[in-house]
Amino acid sequence: MAKRRLKLILSYDGAAYHGWQRQPGLPTIQQTVETAVARLCNTCAEVVGSSRTDAGVHALGQVAHFDIDTPVPTANFTKALNNLLPHDIAILTAEDAPGDFDAISDTKTKLYRYMIYTAPVRPVMDIRYCWHRPGDLDAHAMNRAAKLLLGKKDFKSFATASDTRQSSIRTITHCSVMKEESWIYIDIAADGFLYNMVRNITGTPTEIGRGRWQPEMITEILKAKDRSAAGPITPPQGLTLLRIQY
Amino acid sequence: MAKRRLKLILSYDGAAYHGWQRQPGLPTIQQTVETAVARLCNTCAEVVGSSRTDAGVHALGQVAHFDIDTPVPTANFTKALNNLLPHDIAILTAEDAPGDFDAISDTKTKLYRYMIYTAPVRPVMDIRYCWHRPGDLDAHAMNRAAKLLLGKKDFKSFATASDTRQSSIRTITHCSVMKEESWIYIDIAADGFLYNMVRNITGTPTEIGRGRWQPEMITEILKAKDRSAAGPITPPQGLTLLRIQY
Repeated sequence: MAKRRLKLILSYDGAAYHGWQRQPGLPTIQQTVETAVARLCNTCAEVVGSSRTDAGVHALGQVAHFDIDTPVPTANFTKALNNLLPHDIAILTAEDAPGDFDAISDTKTKLYRYMIYTAPVRPVMDIRYCWHRPGDLDAHAMNRAAKLLLGKKDFKSFATASDTRQSSIRTITHCSVMKEESWIYIDIAADGFLYNMVRNITGTPTEIGRGRWQPEMITEILKAKDRSAAGPITPPQGLTLLRIQY
Repeated sequence: MAKRRLKLILSYDGAAYHGWQRQPGLPTIQQTVETAVARLCNTCAEVVGSSRTDAGVHALGQVAHFDIDTPVPTANFTKALNNLLPHDIAILTAEDAPGDFDAISDTKTKLYRYMIYTAPVRPVMDIRYCWHRPGDLDAHAMNRAAKLLLGKKDFKSFATASDTRQSSIRTITHCSVMKEESWIYIDIAADGFLYNMVRNITGTPTEIGRGRWQPEMITEILKAKDRSAAGPITPPQGLTLLRIQY
């Protein structure tokens, strides 16, 4: 039987996992999905994820591909894999993809949402999916800062120092800050992200929202090309990968 | 120092607890809150909760009272208790109450929400707070059924057989079924509930929503005064105590 390529869209609560990427002796999303695929198809396959989400980060629209030779019809994959997966991971769709489809290199944009809860008392039913940071934030100033991140720029100041990718130039296509009651939502879409880039970026509007810096500080930080110029990294549980476009 | 009475409004994710009420050797909300109060005040107090929520049931507005003689100012209780409580329990407000305030007997109405998710794939970031029951439900028929539950009636058919309370007459003041995309919300308010009554009730509109019964079946079930006439009990994780009025 010839191998065929499948494309998965999947969701997960990342709290219990050490991120997407397989790591010896640690529970990860990739390894958990690969185990389910192996049990379903009686053969091993590497499941290639578009985003290597960090430990504790969630996803509602991660995309992955893998190659398999199995008689299992594509239409059965979603239900069959969900029956084999733990409750905090779910396949949304499984479909046949062209043999040259690549979940990583074919990505056009990825959209992330970062959620901050600003009221004094923690929200018990959302605490797993937000950063509880009591204290008012000026969403208007944060949104002005967000707009200064738009476009094709060198984001070296927002890359964790250990990032070894050659170029730190990326294009942010959408960046906005919204406030709803005690919630702040920071949405960021780009053609790609450096290591920890979303969580490194979100720390800076937060410093601006609490009045430490003016929104125009973003321009200074970008110019510095130095991680220490920007705000602190935000905790992983506030971050969710919403959608990937191809 | 004279004892004073405090009134708490509190919230919790009930997943990790065997319900509100203290039980030897099992983690419960009441025992966890009592432990925090004891650590804060260096003295023990019984924390009396308005609702004895079942194992796995959540609350956004449980109310409790307790008597304490402590120099801790009332204004400090919320923050101090939250620092001592685990992340899945949070005190929303703590205030001085009249010495004759009783969280149980002064209750006028309690409002519960039951959440059902009807899409085929489980919602990973909400799975702890809903009943995942794939398959369309007719919310219009369910809402018609809900209206037939309104008023002062004998709800014996919706009480778990082991309920030992003398009277099974209660007054349901609000009952509605709403649909939003793949979600069904069943809201029920009453002056009081029999043991398991909300989860026993919600099973019946669900049977009506899937077409097994007509909405008018509610009237037959109420007349029967027999638990076996009604639909099955629904799982606890879908239920949240929203609000208690005094």
